[in-house]
Amino acid sequence: MSLTTTQHIILPEPTLRRLPWYLAYIETLMARGEQHISSTGISKALNVDSSQIAKDLSFLNIKGKTRIGYNVSELAEALSAFLGFKQAHKACIFGTGSLGKALIRDKGLANYGLQIVGAFDVNPRVVGSCIEDVLVSDLSEINKVFETFEPVVAIITVPPDVAQEVADTAIKAGFKAIWNFTPYRVKVPENIVMANTSIYAHLALIYNRLKAN
Amino acid sequence: MSLTTTQHIILPEPTLRRLPWYLAYIETLMARGEQHISSTGISKALNVDSSQIAKDLSFLNIKGKTRIGYNVSELAEALSAFLGFKQAHKACIFGTGSLGKALIRDKGLANYGLQIVGAFDVNPRVVGSCIEDVLVSDLSEINKVFETFEPVVAIITVPPDVAQEVADTAIKAGFKAIWNFTPYRVKVPENIVMANTSIYAHLALIYNRLKAN
Repeated sequence: MSLTTTQHIILPEPTLRRLPWYLAYIETLMARGEQHISSTGISKALNVDSSQIAKDLSFLNIKGKTRIGYNVSELAEALSAFLGFKQAHKACIFGTGSLGKALIRDKGLANYGLQIVGAFDVNPRVVGSCIEDVLVSDLSEINKVFETFEPVVAIITVPPDVAQEVADTAIKAGFKAIWNFTPYRVKVPENIVMANTSIYAHLALIYNRLKAN
Repeated sequence: MSLTTTQHIILPEPTLRRLPWYLAYIETLMARGEQHISSTGISKALNVDSSQIAKDLSFLNIKGKTRIGYNVSELAEALSAFLGFKQAHKACIFGTGSLGKALIRDKGLANYGLQIVGAFDVNPRVVGSCIEDVLVSDLSEINKVFETFEPVVAIITVPPDVAQEVADTAIKAGFKAIWNFTPYRVKVPENIVMANTSIYAHLALIYNRLKAN
């Protein structure tokens, strides 16, 4: 099993959404002590077409055995490595309100390759304090923190009206990816990776569909 | 300005993603003391085609004035009401780990119409305690809690291997919507509203795109 040849592939977004579902399901199987799973088995459990699953898994260099299927621990290992979850990606939190704090405390993120090395705030009452092992620095210290840790991902959990400004500051300091948790639509240059986790948009979806039911 | 006639419209998902962006931007303008905004102005700020914005806003019964545009506070009010953010939607948290706790503490959610009325866990050390004003009950008490508060939205922040089981329990108790924060792909009956906030899928996207850059 060799993963190195496929690591650079730019995967389509829908595939990147589905692969973590497969991983979560397979980890559930592992916890139950199961040994093998077929793409038909994954298909039934997750309501995803089995040909789609075979296609998604074809990006990985892993083969299932006829009649037996995939070895669950090998498949979990391969998926996790392929998705980048086995490598540490250094990140800083911008804004240590309730969400920012929760992300620092969430041990789950470390299991998915995210290592939070620093945090920023502008509130003098929190600057200088630690959340878990993470020191909260004043935003004006960004260059110093960046040089020390060389972080890559800027996680934006500030109030929406300063989201753009803070993202701009992070990019200027050298961050290569912006993970935006605010409802504000942050704009970034083309060479910067951007992901939006739109909690409030999901609420809007839930409310709208509830009304229809 | 009448909103009642449009409240029942099932909006397309992309529209439901964009409308909260407009709202966040308009609230930023309000904070800056601005009075009016045109769809061209929103378009420039958010990189969304202005004809798309006009189309999205046509779902609301609000008209901009020629040359002046929309009154920002009226538009913010109308958008917020239209998206359901002005109404209280009762919710319970399932799983009071770091993310579950953070969602209870996040005052932001209340501004977006989400009222967390209860929480569940299976850990005897947290059952009976309060997080902010929210009592943590044992999952076996779900029917009692449901009868007391009549909540609608079940927010799933348990470990992924029990996500399906907990969602099934919530639906059986009478919850009408599942908001799934786990990477597990939860299945629900057709009459149940489902939203996934896939934090880990967004990490996979960030890592994949970083590799490509």
